[in-house]
Amino acid sequence: MNFCSHCGQPVTLRVPEGDHRPRYVCSACGTIHYQNPKIVAGCVPEHDGRILICRRAIEPRRGYWTIPAGFMENGETTQDAARRESLEEALADVEIGSLLAVVHVLHANQVHVMFRARLAKPEFGAGEESLESILCPEEQIPWSEIAFRSVDFALRRYLEDRRAGVERHHFTALDLRPPAGR
Amino acid sequence: MNFCSHCGQPVTLRVPEGDHRPRYVCSACGTIHYQNPKIVAGCVPEHDGRILICRRAIEPRRGYWTIPAGFMENGETTQDAARRESLEEALADVEIGSLLAVVHVLHANQVHVMFRARLAKPEFGAGEESLESILCPEEQIPWSEIAFRSVDFALRRYLEDRRAGVERHHFTALDLRPPAGR
Repeated sequence: MNFCSHCGQPVTLRVPEGDHRPRYVCSACGTIHYQNPKIVAGCVPEHDGRILICRRAIEPRRGYWTIPAGFMENGETTQDAARRESLEEALADVEIGSLLAVVHVLHANQVHVMFRARLAKPEFGAGEESLESILCPEEQIPWSEIAFRSVDFALRRYLEDRRAGVERHHFTALDLRPPAGR
Repeated sequence: MNFCSHCGQPVTLRVPEGDHRPRYVCSACGTIHYQNPKIVAGCVPEHDGRILICRRAIEPRRGYWTIPAGFMENGETTQDAARRESLEEALADVEIGSLLAVVHVLHANQVHVMFRARLAKPEFGAGEESLESILCPEEQIPWSEIAFRSVDFALRRYLEDRRAGVERHHFTALDLRPPAGR
């Protein structure tokens, strides 16, 4: 951030009065520009015991496998967002179920919120951001080609819970920041 | 948003190529400025059966009662944020427990994430953003003077679950947008 989005003048990084952290503050109009984590919402859609996964057509991690997930938009719920991403990325009309995982991705300033989901009919495809989508049996999940650690976490917890016959939710944090940045 | 925070030139609101929603796009450098919901993290701290609540010293809703809660910062987890807010607003060192509530506040583009919490010792006070803090028995909670609907929701679910001897989590959405904005 170099300029104030309100008035267009340069910003400086400093701790505002009464605050504890450096913020981008406008040198002209004084607007404080807070920066906060973004939510990524997604789901693990199941149909007939198999899991719907998508191979990414875009960077980062083009060619690797993921579950439908993406940035939550203003004006929607996390469930809305997970359902929308399934439609966009896998052309799949899913029913969102219980909360599965919350992954704090500290190096990316993101919170990934993953739900269980059900795909009523085996109808799906490759959206613009996907090379292909498949309904994958548990034993064929390409673990070495999963795009993101949060997706690996969500899939593993999903399968563990399914085997145990429970629907828990799981919090975790991932932190790949250099030690000085912590 | 009027100007590009990257280069300082004017932005226009338009649907970028390959996108479905209007975004602020820089007329000069082309940067797309996405706007996403912000997370507010908070908790319901309990000590000896009583609930720690704070009377707000700042707008919005100055003078009304709330639980410790505030905007999540980059580099922390939602639990970190709830604990930090308890320290800042109520000078209370709490231990964060299970997930209590996720409230999608659609008119404010916020997601409120509330946890159960335990205040080991009855030590607390009024932080800079609070007029006072109290440990409040259930029957004395000032329901008509609660600052926010999400706080009302979290407190009611907390007390219901406590009576039932369970620790569930509860999703809901609040939407005070005018119909045209939906």
